[in-house]
Amino acid sequence: MSESESQSDAEQSPITVILPDGSELEVSADTTVEDCAYEIGPGLGRDTIAGKLDGELVAKEAPVYDEARLEIVTDQSDEYLEVLRHSAAHCLAQAVERHFEDVELAIGPPTEEGFYYDFDNLDVEESDFDALEDEIEAIIEADYDIEREEVSVEDAEERLADEPYKLELLEELADEGEQVTFYSQGQWEDLCAGPHVESTGEVGVVKLLEIAGAYWRGDEENPMQTRIYGTAFEDESDLEAYLERREEAKERDHRKIGSEMDLFSIQDVTGPGLPLYHPPGKTILRELERFVEDLNEDSGYDYVETPHVFKTELWHRSGHYENYQDDMFIFDVGDDEFGLKPMNCPGHAAIFQDHSWSYRDLPVRYAENGKVYRKEQRGELSGLSRVWSFTIDDGHLFVRPDQIEREVEAIMDSIDTVLSTFDLEYEIALATRPDKSVGSDEIWEKAEAQLESVLEKRNVDYDLEAGDGAFYGPKIDYAFKDAIGRSWDGPTVQLDFNMPERFDLDYVGEDNDTHKPVMIHRALYGSYERFFMMLIEHYEGNFPFWLAPEQVRILPISDANLGYAHRVKNEFDEFRVEVDGRDSTLERKIRAAHDDRVPYQIIVGDNEEEAGNISVRDRFEDQEYDVDIEAFKAHLEAERDEKRPEPDFLAE
Amino acid sequence: MSESESQSDAEQSPITVILPDGSELEVSADTTVEDCAYEIGPGLGRDTIAGKLDGELVAKEAPVYDEARLEIVTDQSDEYLEVLRHSAAHCLAQAVERHFEDVELAIGPPTEEGFYYDFDNLDVEESDFDALEDEIEAIIEADYDIEREEVSVEDAEERLADEPYKLELLEELADEGEQVTFYSQGQWEDLCAGPHVESTGEVGVVKLLEIAGAYWRGDEENPMQTRIYGTAFEDESDLEAYLERREEAKERDHRKIGSEMDLFSIQDVTGPGLPLYHPPGKTILRELERFVEDLNEDSGYDYVETPHVFKTELWHRSGHYENYQDDMFIFDVGDDEFGLKPMNCPGHAAIFQDHSWSYRDLPVRYAENGKVYRKEQRGELSGLSRVWSFTIDDGHLFVRPDQIEREVEAIMDSIDTVLSTFDLEYEIALATRPDKSVGSDEIWEKAEAQLESVLEKRNVDYDLEAGDGAFYGPKIDYAFKDAIGRSWDGPTVQLDFNMPERFDLDYVGEDNDTHKPVMIHRALYGSYERFFMMLIEHYEGNFPFWLAPEQVRILPISDANLGYAHRVKNEFDEFRVEVDGRDSTLERKIRAAHDDRVPYQIIVGDNEEEAGNISVRDRFEDQEYDVDIEAFKAHLEAERDEKRPEPDFLAE
Repeated sequence: MSESESQSDAEQSPITVILPDGSELEVSADTTVEDCAYEIGPGLGRDTIAGKLDGELVAKEAPVYDEARLEIVTDQSDEYLEVLRHSAAHCLAQAVERHFEDVELAIGPPTEEGFYYDFDNLDVEESDFDALEDEIEAIIEADYDIEREEVSVEDAEERLADEPYKLELLEELADEGEQVTFYSQGQWEDLCAGPHVESTGEVGVVKLLEIAGAYWRGDEENPMQTRIYGTAFEDESDLEAYLERREEAKERDHRKIGSEMDLFSIQDVTGPGLPLYHPPGKTILRELERFVEDLNEDSGYDYVETPHVFKTELWHRSGHYENYQDDMFIFDVGDDEFGLKPMNCPGHAAIFQDHSWSYRDLPVRYAENGKVYRKEQRGELSGLSRVWSFTIDDGHLFVRPDQIEREVEAIMDSIDTVLSTFDLEYEIALATRPDKSVGSDEIWEKAEAQLESVLEKRNVDYDLEAGDGAFYGPKIDYAFKDAIGRSWDGPTVQLDFNMPERFDLDYVGEDNDTHKPVMIHRALYGSYERFFMMLIEHYEGNFPFWLAPEQVRILPISDANLGYAHRVKNEFDEFRVEVDGRDSTLERKIRAAHDDRVPYQIIVGDNEEEAGNISVRDRFEDQEYDVDIEAFKAHLEAERDEKRPEPDFLAE
Repeated sequence: MSESESQSDAEQSPITVILPDGSELEVSADTTVEDCAYEIGPGLGRDTIAGKLDGELVAKEAPVYDEARLEIVTDQSDEYLEVLRHSAAHCLAQAVERHFEDVELAIGPPTEEGFYYDFDNLDVEESDFDALEDEIEAIIEADYDIEREEVSVEDAEERLADEPYKLELLEELADEGEQVTFYSQGQWEDLCAGPHVESTGEVGVVKLLEIAGAYWRGDEENPMQTRIYGTAFEDESDLEAYLERREEAKERDHRKIGSEMDLFSIQDVTGPGLPLYHPPGKTILRELERFVEDLNEDSGYDYVETPHVFKTELWHRSGHYENYQDDMFIFDVGDDEFGLKPMNCPGHAAIFQDHSWSYRDLPVRYAENGKVYRKEQRGELSGLSRVWSFTIDDGHLFVRPDQIEREVEAIMDSIDTVLSTFDLEYEIALATRPDKSVGSDEIWEKAEAQLESVLEKRNVDYDLEAGDGAFYGPKIDYAFKDAIGRSWDGPTVQLDFNMPERFDLDYVGEDNDTHKPVMIHRALYGSYERFFMMLIEHYEGNFPFWLAPEQVRILPISDANLGYAHRVKNEFDEFRVEVDGRDSTLERKIRAAHDDRVPYQIIVGDNEEEAGNISVRDRFEDQEYDVDIEAFKAHLEAERDEKRPEPDFLAE
């Protein structure tokens, strides 16, 4: 620090922001994002639309703070679409207020796939979308400047006198005497933190998608409002491509296919977010379970079983109560409080703690297909992708510090095996300390360093997701891409130096002293529900042979061949095989087997019966005659045991 | 009905009681049990100690009622011991009041194994047992007459002025103006419905066993009282035999062995009645699970999976809410009420209902290892035998009426397979309509007749347990006897004509009309927890080879043989095998393997290493040298696959 700087007013002492390339920029305390951009270069300053501070999108007018990681957002940034969609949400609200009277505004954020805006007192139908889209287009064409204004809370209260929901937000946002921001476009304005594009002309193309009910603030106790979903893109061709993908995704929707294939149901009478697996669905789940069970057993895991209900004393000890309480199902029994488990780790820690351990016993590896319960808002529940109860193929390791890297590598090998079996490409992210967390700085730095070291040793690409770690430790997260390019959360490897402290876990070292083990949380699929959902959509229900609920269907050409069909069935009884014995034409039977997504059909008529062989047809409509029964069986065994992704007998 | 009878006063019209041999006895309306006995014969009248009316033990002075099934209890009856023990409980209470001041009496019933009496304001320790037993002996030797007296409620209130708990009971027992009964012996008396033996001299020998805390009326909200457990027999030799069995049972106690073998734990922090299965315990459970899973799949069952939490709407529909509510864990989420499932059947009915069915599809057989939750009183919880959550190897069939008998027979075949695998002898009972039940008379009679028909066709002995059926239908219950002769509840087959009505389940018959299927509930083990507990005690932890958590342990004689030991281990890697690589003597390693209940030890020293063979030692301490590795492996495979009950390599 130079002498002149150290003499300046304490209020004005310089602060340091960290740029994406790791370099540091020293600026004065009242500097904004935009100022920093100009500091870096005048061109960047002029192009600045918004900023990201420690991962959070902010207006370019926002002040930076000491030690903040700063990214400048321009129209070339990935985040630009998010900013544009936020402005599109404003255009929608403006259009709605032009079109309908007495509407009350709630909130209107951008989302992963577009944006929405919530309204009260609005009676809108999808048939209104054309008119609203025309209005939005008019607003875009008018190219209103989008202007940011800082106003006092008192002033804001006056402007929002007719907007009860906005007033409620305002109350939480700021105390008296503070400033809040409004964004205006033309005659319309909204209480909003931004950021936004410069003018409505930049919004591009907007498409309204659907109407849904949504509780104010997601809370069922509050009034139900009307949510309009839409999306926006810079140009028409991006929108077209998106709508096509959306159509494709609808075709593959696991709820639609799940019902067609009788895989699962979620029923009003049994409860929301609580799936029931029907026989074909449970068959697939069991195959998935056995796959990782075998993998885990080969990797030295021991299976355990823990209750779904625990005294909340356990969650106090683990720290979940403090951090997870709102998401937990909690109830009293007598004087004690109990809760459904939101995670399996404390139960596994309790088992480890019930035993004394020597350094020779470590690593100890526990596995469990453990069901957990998280109280998502009912409006957020959707098929198998958002549920109240889901099963994790959970594993917890208790290891010596010198065993961490080897164990993390072994876990990453298992994850590779799983994801490659399903032909899933993936990306890896290292997620570090979040704001809400337990444990000392030292412990966190140590944990993060160990994971980085493994990633670098394996020489894999990974993203750094600062602040996205679990509250108890840093983690390596996998995201995989399905057949239509969508990204899903998947396996995870999490280090945990905290739980062993909280549960006072220890082992006796070679030095005869007690030491704390390191805990590793890991899952290969993540949640069965989400993985299953993703597989349904990934395969469009056309599961690989080893997973297909019905693997082979035998179609007798006429009733006269029914006896032979059943004799053939007996030959294939190690597989899930059925005979279509209905009184119907061969054509119809072939069509039914195809609609039911059965990988292979065996067709038997007089010719086959006479020759003692079969005809084989696969789901791609290819057919081969005079197939030897033993040869086909041998092929199916190999196709199953090798977990091949597609029926490939006729491809040989 | 004769003319003269029909003319008698309606109040005095005769009633009919049914005797154990099925014959009927017609008596007048105010006849007592003892009167009936005299009616049958004066000898029986004189010997009468008590009676049983519809299975309930009553005093001989109790009036009979129309259509009652009556048994006369004499000192030759099985129930005599129960009567004697009830009197022994009175002797204990009398002795306690002689020995301690200001004691307040609660209740003191006979139990399966003896009796207890609950006291408040009593500071007693086991060191007081000798003095109390002496006092009881003095009371027995005094041979007081035990006298029954009917008194008015008002009179009773006066007598019980110092007994607050008795007063509370009195209040519930009778309204003002009614009569209650007291039993007195010497200077001591108790509010009591009886029955009792004639005098304290008949009580035989009494032994006090232990002291425990117990909540008044089993409710945790109430004060904790002091319970003294004891037992009584007619003579010393019966008592000796019982105490020996008790000692034996203590040695086999599954909580003791469970802890020694690290099978499971129930911890304060995780909650009562909620077992955690540790790796060795879960290994055994998984073998048990897979055994019935294979059996079920071979029998045409499809596995399903249902949530553990349901909206209580489901339990209203199924009738469980009405009948089971007090035993359920229930909580609110928003405006809806949810409950942990006390049974799996409604979930399976909901899956069946979600599909349309033809007569050709039936029988549909669903199976699930389904965890259920029942809120037992915390004082009643004990190890794995009484828990809050337990898993049923549950199965539900939806069948056509013409398929009932064949399906019940197939289930009974599977039960035979399971019970014979564990060398368990069993008794069968047909349990019929209980007081608290749903469904019409016609439906119940039909269901009971079907089960009787199957039992008779199979030509098996069975007891009729009138009134012990489930609230939804009659059932066949199995009770098996373990290695030390104790009886346990086991498998069950239950018919259910009610659930299909409540869930409006149907199928389209050959006649194109819709019909209601019959539902069959069945379990092969019953509850995994109880079956596992019973197996631990049955085998005293010495599990058959196929179940043993560690099947083989390899003991190198010295460090020099450690490498060979690990090569041998690789040969046996299809089994659960460990190497004892510790620096210790062979003798100690053998002792440790024995203590750890490992079925087989493989001993390898220089001789074995040189010859490329092994020595084999079994848990019976027999040993054989120069054993060929392949031959032993082949033996183990057979021993495992055939699920043989004991290690028998050295018996060959």
